[in-house]
Amino acid sequence: MPVNLKPIDNAQLAPIAGVDLAYACASIKKPDPSRKDLLVIRIDKGNTVAGVFTQNRFCAAPVQICKQNLDAGVQIRALVINTGNANAGTGESGRQHARAVCAALAQELDCLPEQILPFSTGVILEPLPVERIITALPTRQPATWAEAAEAIMTTDVAPKASSRVIEIDGQRVAITGIAKGAGMIHPNMATMLGFIATDAAITRPVLNQLIKEVADVSFNSITIDGDTSTNDSFMLISTGQSAAARIDSVQHPAYEQLKAVLLEVAIELAQAIVRDGEGATKFITIQVEGGRSSAECKAVGYAIGRSPLVKTAFFASDPNLGRLLAAIGYAGISDLDVDRLEMYLDDVLVAKDGGRNPDYKEEDGQRVMQQSEITVRVVLNRGLANATVWSCDFSYDYVKINADYRS
Amino acid sequence: MPVNLKPIDNAQLAPIAGVDLAYACASIKKPDPSRKDLLVIRIDKGNTVAGVFTQNRFCAAPVQICKQNLDAGVQIRALVINTGNANAGTGESGRQHARAVCAALAQELDCLPEQILPFSTGVILEPLPVERIITALPTRQPATWAEAAEAIMTTDVAPKASSRVIEIDGQRVAITGIAKGAGMIHPNMATMLGFIATDAAITRPVLNQLIKEVADVSFNSITIDGDTSTNDSFMLISTGQSAAARIDSVQHPAYEQLKAVLLEVAIELAQAIVRDGEGATKFITIQVEGGRSSAECKAVGYAIGRSPLVKTAFFASDPNLGRLLAAIGYAGISDLDVDRLEMYLDDVLVAKDGGRNPDYKEEDGQRVMQQSEITVRVVLNRGLANATVWSCDFSYDYVKINADYRS
Repeated sequence: MPVNLKPIDNAQLAPIAGVDLAYACASIKKPDPSRKDLLVIRIDKGNTVAGVFTQNRFCAAPVQICKQNLDAGVQIRALVINTGNANAGTGESGRQHARAVCAALAQELDCLPEQILPFSTGVILEPLPVERIITALPTRQPATWAEAAEAIMTTDVAPKASSRVIEIDGQRVAITGIAKGAGMIHPNMATMLGFIATDAAITRPVLNQLIKEVADVSFNSITIDGDTSTNDSFMLISTGQSAAARIDSVQHPAYEQLKAVLLEVAIELAQAIVRDGEGATKFITIQVEGGRSSAECKAVGYAIGRSPLVKTAFFASDPNLGRLLAAIGYAGISDLDVDRLEMYLDDVLVAKDGGRNPDYKEEDGQRVMQQSEITVRVVLNRGLANATVWSCDFSYDYVKINADYRS
Repeated sequence: MPVNLKPIDNAQLAPIAGVDLAYACASIKKPDPSRKDLLVIRIDKGNTVAGVFTQNRFCAAPVQICKQNLDAGVQIRALVINTGNANAGTGESGRQHARAVCAALAQELDCLPEQILPFSTGVILEPLPVERIITALPTRQPATWAEAAEAIMTTDVAPKASSRVIEIDGQRVAITGIAKGAGMIHPNMATMLGFIATDAAITRPVLNQLIKEVADVSFNSITIDGDTSTNDSFMLISTGQSAAARIDSVQHPAYEQLKAVLLEVAIELAQAIVRDGEGATKFITIQVEGGRSSAECKAVGYAIGRSPLVKTAFFASDPNLGRLLAAIGYAGISDLDVDRLEMYLDDVLVAKDGGRNPDYKEEDGQRVMQQSEITVRVVLNRGLANATVWSCDFSYDYVKINADYRS
């Protein structure tokens, strides 16, 4: 079960003026007329949309089409998302399939295929059942944000959504987002599927900058298994229907205010993905401080967060903390002076001066390891930068889920 | 149980003139008077010794002392290896402990402490029980190579040894090696513990070159869990007691001949470590061909070999081969053209033209996945370089072994 992940409550998810949602049951993975596996996010004219995508060279066909359509500079009218099939490792026919889905929806919405952004998630290397998707599209029915979150799930145990309402210059602005992901999670510049919409008005160049800044410290700071997906996409939609003034520059007074709230939403979604990590029983926060750059801090955080040895020790509640030091040591900082760093488990100082803190007691480590939420804090003492990475433990159920996934 | 790993037979392990072995039972991890956990490899004068070591910044105290002593240029007289404690993450006191062990053995052998090389393997971040080691040293008794292989095991299920006898210029030359390792295996420039001795005469500069060339395509081409150990060390010992001519240059006619046989021994030991990988049920060979450099080929091999998703699919015998493509895609080759590569599972062509081979049949993939020995062949079609990486699958038992290791 997900680690301390509160069930989503649709009453807490603010509708976004200018966005409407609809789901369908297309039986994409297998015949199941009750499984929501197709989502359409329609957006009124006057919007701006930005995206960041996986760096995987085997990026999925829909990711390739998304990038092309965003680069074309046309007004985006809808996003269409299917689960149950990743349409990745599918070559030219995969691109044709993704374009066919866009064309079908475009005809109905009376727009160009280039104004549709396609997304897929699920098993790789299998042909997209494009006919079933096109047939199911007209059968879609209006969805709440909670239903939308459900419609994009794959191995997720729980749907993931987050929402905030703020005031900018006395005008109401709403932000609501959904995400999916539980395995193949080790984003590189982007993430699984994440969609955040706001009615704030934001110009496209500002939105492009905003999404990068937000992704970097949210979706790009989590790892479950160290595998970077072929389909990672994080989209930010601005409908512009709030009465608040348009944000047309990163110097605009509302930019930092909006970014802070967007970050809250994005971090909540990113953490929800880790809490629902395949087989996870613990939620681990890794804070790395005092580095020369945030990149090196993140490298240390990821080395700890993806180490199978560290993750199995957390699963066992075993303070076998030398494994954490080993991971720090191979994180790639070639001039790291291990005699200067400190490592804490919550408030317990475990290591300093290149070795175990003489005052460290095994029972203190044991006490923290038994918690379901644990913070590892590494102080590198070589600079002013820091980074936080979120991860989970590694259990029998991770193996079970991934040995069984296709069957 | 180890995957197709033949039991070692001491009758097949050639003694090396100039080397004698002895083990003791020091109760290093816990009181156990029958567990061999201390090994001394004594070498006659006139030898040369070379080593390569872990790149982990938290490298163990004995690794630091080994490097210092090798750099000092003195004649090495003995290696002393303990299991049950890594003496890593132990700071200055760890170095003092390692030096104390060297000093005790040096006094007995009537040499300088700098002429002794210390090695440790086992749990990290706990003080070395140095008194028990020093007390046990004089109780040691003569060991065969098979007993020596046993005396350096930690979570290894089976001892690992390999041996060859060849003729160089009509003179008999023998090579025998032992290794240990089953987890925290993802060597970087070096490996777990590996010791190979030969009676061939090789000058120190040639030995230094030879060990790098051999390590690169043997111990530095395996992964079990992607964790680089703090204690990895691979040592090459030349006693010079064979009647064959001294190899004093890489242009010497015998250099390539000896290197080829050393490689056989090193690869057999490296593969034995993977076959005995924690919880392994399958032995996976990943051949990457047609790259621009062997480094990029190895990066692709390691991306596949360390992916938990790929490894759990192998465990399940599930040809969920999209996971292999995803791993190739995030291996870090930023200009990789996925439309040009081919991927084979043994003789089955799975992927080409950026997607699934139209002639690929699931039952063919299934047939290969059920084998205990599987070769993945990736043809990048962008250059002439190649590399081979050996890995294993990821089972429930990996989690069990590593959740239980300290208890």
